[in-house]
Amino acid sequence: MNASTTLAEAPAALVTRLAKAGRDAQRVLARLDHDAKAAALRAAAAQLRAAETEILAANARDLTAGQERGLSAALLDRLMLDSKRLAGIANAVENVAGLPDPVGQVIDSSTAPSGLALSRVRVPIGLIGIVYESRPNVTADAAALCLASGNAVLLRGGSEAVHSNRAIHAALVKGLVSAGIPAAAVQLLPTQDRAAVGAMLAAAGLIDMIVPRGGKGLVERVQADARVPVLAHLDGICHTYIHSAADPAKAARIAVNAKLRRTGICGAMETLLLDAQFPESQKVVAALLDGGCALRGDARAMALDPRIAAASTEDWDTEYLDSVLSVAVVDGLDAALQHIAAHGSQHTEAIVSEDETAVELFLGEVDSAIVMANASTQFADGGEFGLGAEIGIATGRLHARGPVALEGLTTYKWLVRGTGQVRP
Amino acid sequence: MNASTTLAEAPAALVTRLAKAGRDAQRVLARLDHDAKAAALRAAAAQLRAAETEILAANARDLTAGQERGLSAALLDRLMLDSKRLAGIANAVENVAGLPDPVGQVIDSSTAPSGLALSRVRVPIGLIGIVYESRPNVTADAAALCLASGNAVLLRGGSEAVHSNRAIHAALVKGLVSAGIPAAAVQLLPTQDRAAVGAMLAAAGLIDMIVPRGGKGLVERVQADARVPVLAHLDGICHTYIHSAADPAKAARIAVNAKLRRTGICGAMETLLLDAQFPESQKVVAALLDGGCALRGDARAMALDPRIAAASTEDWDTEYLDSVLSVAVVDGLDAALQHIAAHGSQHTEAIVSEDETAVELFLGEVDSAIVMANASTQFADGGEFGLGAEIGIATGRLHARGPVALEGLTTYKWLVRGTGQVRP
Repeated sequence: MNASTTLAEAPAALVTRLAKAGRDAQRVLARLDHDAKAAALRAAAAQLRAAETEILAANARDLTAGQERGLSAALLDRLMLDSKRLAGIANAVENVAGLPDPVGQVIDSSTAPSGLALSRVRVPIGLIGIVYESRPNVTADAAALCLASGNAVLLRGGSEAVHSNRAIHAALVKGLVSAGIPAAAVQLLPTQDRAAVGAMLAAAGLIDMIVPRGGKGLVERVQADARVPVLAHLDGICHTYIHSAADPAKAARIAVNAKLRRTGICGAMETLLLDAQFPESQKVVAALLDGGCALRGDARAMALDPRIAAASTEDWDTEYLDSVLSVAVVDGLDAALQHIAAHGSQHTEAIVSEDETAVELFLGEVDSAIVMANASTQFADGGEFGLGAEIGIATGRLHARGPVALEGLTTYKWLVRGTGQVRP
Repeated sequence: MNASTTLAEAPAALVTRLAKAGRDAQRVLARLDHDAKAAALRAAAAQLRAAETEILAANARDLTAGQERGLSAALLDRLMLDSKRLAGIANAVENVAGLPDPVGQVIDSSTAPSGLALSRVRVPIGLIGIVYESRPNVTADAAALCLASGNAVLLRGGSEAVHSNRAIHAALVKGLVSAGIPAAAVQLLPTQDRAAVGAMLAAAGLIDMIVPRGGKGLVERVQADARVPVLAHLDGICHTYIHSAADPAKAARIAVNAKLRRTGICGAMETLLLDAQFPESQKVVAALLDGGCALRGDARAMALDPRIAAASTEDWDTEYLDSVLSVAVVDGLDAALQHIAAHGSQHTEAIVSEDETAVELFLGEVDSAIVMANASTQFADGGEFGLGAEIGIATGRLHARGPVALEGLTTYKWLVRGTGQVRP
C-alpha cells in the first residue's frame, strides 16, 4: 500500500500506477542472487513472527465481521489464524527461501551452423498478479514464491480477509525492506473495489500473468475476463481405475485414501471406475462405504452393494469435494479411457494394476496433467512432488501443467554469443 | 473441407463441428510414432508436387482477383506461387518430417520422498488454430509443424489466397489420408466469413492455442479478442548497441547486415545505439548511408554525418521494416540498457563489444526473447537456431519465447509410477 493512494483514484489508474512501480521493483529483483532473495525471505518470516499480536488482532476483526455477515463455519475456519497457523505461514516462507533458484539455470545450449553459441537461460516472468479469496496465508505464500523466482507481485485478496491480509503484507514488506528489497516488490491492492480486479485482468503489458486462487466462480470469472495470460486451476474431477489385474488390497487401500484422506482437495478422487473383470470390486466399495463415503453408481455398480444409490447424469461430471463418490463398472481399459476422456477434467487420473502393459497404456493414453499408477490421486501436490511448495496446480495446457512452483514462475531468454557473424 | 458444409451453418456451429472433428483426429495423431508422422508428411509433400498444375491454376485465380482488387505489388508477390516456390513448399514439408520428434521426450525425472517415480513427458498440445494472411505457404508450413508434433490444426487463411489455400490443403490431405492419417487432422475453414475467425478465437476448450501469422493488425485483433491462449508475435523493434570497446570492422559489418540484408523481417535492426566513447561511429553510419539506408538521429547522431535527418519522438518506437534506421548516441552501457528498456519490444537486441564484462552485463540485463553479442540481429530465426523450421517468433513471456518450432507446440504431463502408495 502506498500513502499517496486516495479513494478518488480510478481503479485503472491505480492498477497502472502500482503495476509500473512493481515492474520497476522487479528489475531490481531480477538481478539478485539466490542468497540475497533467501535472506530477504527469512527477514520477512521473522517479521511475520514479530507481528503476531498485530496480525492476530487484525484477523479477529475479520472474523467478527465475517460472523456478522453470516459466513459459514467452513469459511470462517479458512479465514481464522492462531499462533500455530501463523507460525506455519512464517515457516512456509522460510521453506521457500531454501528452495533451489531457477533463475539463471541454463535449460539447454548448442552451437548453430553459423558458429553462434546458443543457450536458453531461465529468467523471471516479471510482474505476477494473484487474485484470491478468503485464505490469508496466500498473501505470504504467493509473495514468497514470486519473490524467490525474481518476480514482483501484485496481490488482491478477498474482502473477508482484508485486515488480515493488510497486516500480513505490512509485516512481509517490513522484512523485505530491511533486507534492501524495494517495497513495491510485493504490493497489496489497497481497495476492495471489484473494478480494480477488472483493471488487473485488463492490464496486458503491465501484468505478465494472473494466478487466480480460489473457488470455481472466481477462476471462471478471471479466465473469462482476463486479457493477461492466466495460470488457472479449474476442476479436479479425478478418476481411479481399478484394472482387472489390480492387487485387491492395494485397490481398496488406494481407493479409500484417494477419496477419504481429505475430501476437499483438488486431487481427491471423484469417480471410481471398476473393471467388470476385477474380482474384488465388492470389497473395494465396502471399504469406501464403511469409511463413511456415500456412493452413487451405475446399474452394475449398484448391484455390488445395496448401499449404493443411483447416479444421475450429472454425477459423472461433478467435483464433490465431499464424502461422495460416483462409481461405474467399465468393460476393460478402453472403456475406462473413454469414460475419462468424456468426463475427466485433465487434472489427475490413476490406474491400479499389476499388469505392466495395462499400466503403460493407461499412462500413455490418458491426457491429464498428472497420470498415476498404483498410487493415491491425493499425491497430486507440489510438496509431494518434491517442488517444495506450489502456487497452484495448473489444469491448462500451456506454459506449465500440474503442480506449479518456482520453475513455473519463470520463462527463458535465448543468449547468442558470436564472434562477428553476419547472416549470408 | 467437408462436403456437408453448408453456407447456412452459423460460424460458431461450424467451428465447433470442425474443432470436435479435429480433436478426435488428434487423439489418433497423439499415438503415432515419429516414423508414421514422417511418412505421412512425405506423402503430403509428394501430393503437393503432384498437384502442381491444380495449385498454380488456383493461385492464378487468386492473383487475377488480387489485381482486380488493386492489391499492392508487394502483396501480390507474397501471394504468387510458381514452380520453384511450390517446390520450396514441398521441400519444407519434407524437411519437417526429418526433425527430431519432441513427443515422448522425458524432460526430467525424480523419485519423491514417498517412493513415487516421477517424470515429465512431452505430449502434443492438442488442436492448434492458425489464423494467417496472404502467404499460401503458411498452409503447408503450419500444417507440417503441427502434425509433426502430434497436433491437429484448424487453418484459416486470408481471402486473397483462398483458392491457393484450398488447393494446397486438398493436396496435403490427399497425401496424409493415403498414409492413414484422418483427414480432420488438417482442416481449412471453408468460409471467409470473418465471424468464423471470431468463433475460433472464442473456442476455449475446443481449440487449445491460436497462432496468428501476419501483420500487426491481425495479431492485435487476435490478442484482443481471443479467449483461447495465443502464441503471438508482435513488433520486432530490434536494437544493436555498439559499445566503446567494439571492433570497428565488426561493428560496421554487423550494423549493415542487421539493417540491410533484408529490411522486411522481424529480426531486422530498427535502432542503432552508438556509444559516445566508440571512436568509429562516423564509419558505421557512413557504411549504412552508403548502403542505401536513410538514417534518423538525435542531435549527437546528426553531428556524425550531414546526411542524417532529425528523428521524431515516434522514431524510437517504430518498426520500419524498410531501409530506414533510427540512430542515437548513448553515454555508456547503462544508457543503452535504459533506451532498450524504454523503447524495445523484447524481440532481439545485440551488443557489439570486445569487452567480455560489458557483453555479459548486456546479455544478463536485457530482457528480450533473444539477446546477442557480436552478431547480426538477422540471425533471429528458427532455422538459424537449428530448430529446422519455425511456426513463429513469440514475443510474449509465457510457454515459449523467441523462435518456436516443434518443442513449442508441445506441453507435458507428469507420469507417476507407484507401488501402492497412499498419502499419510
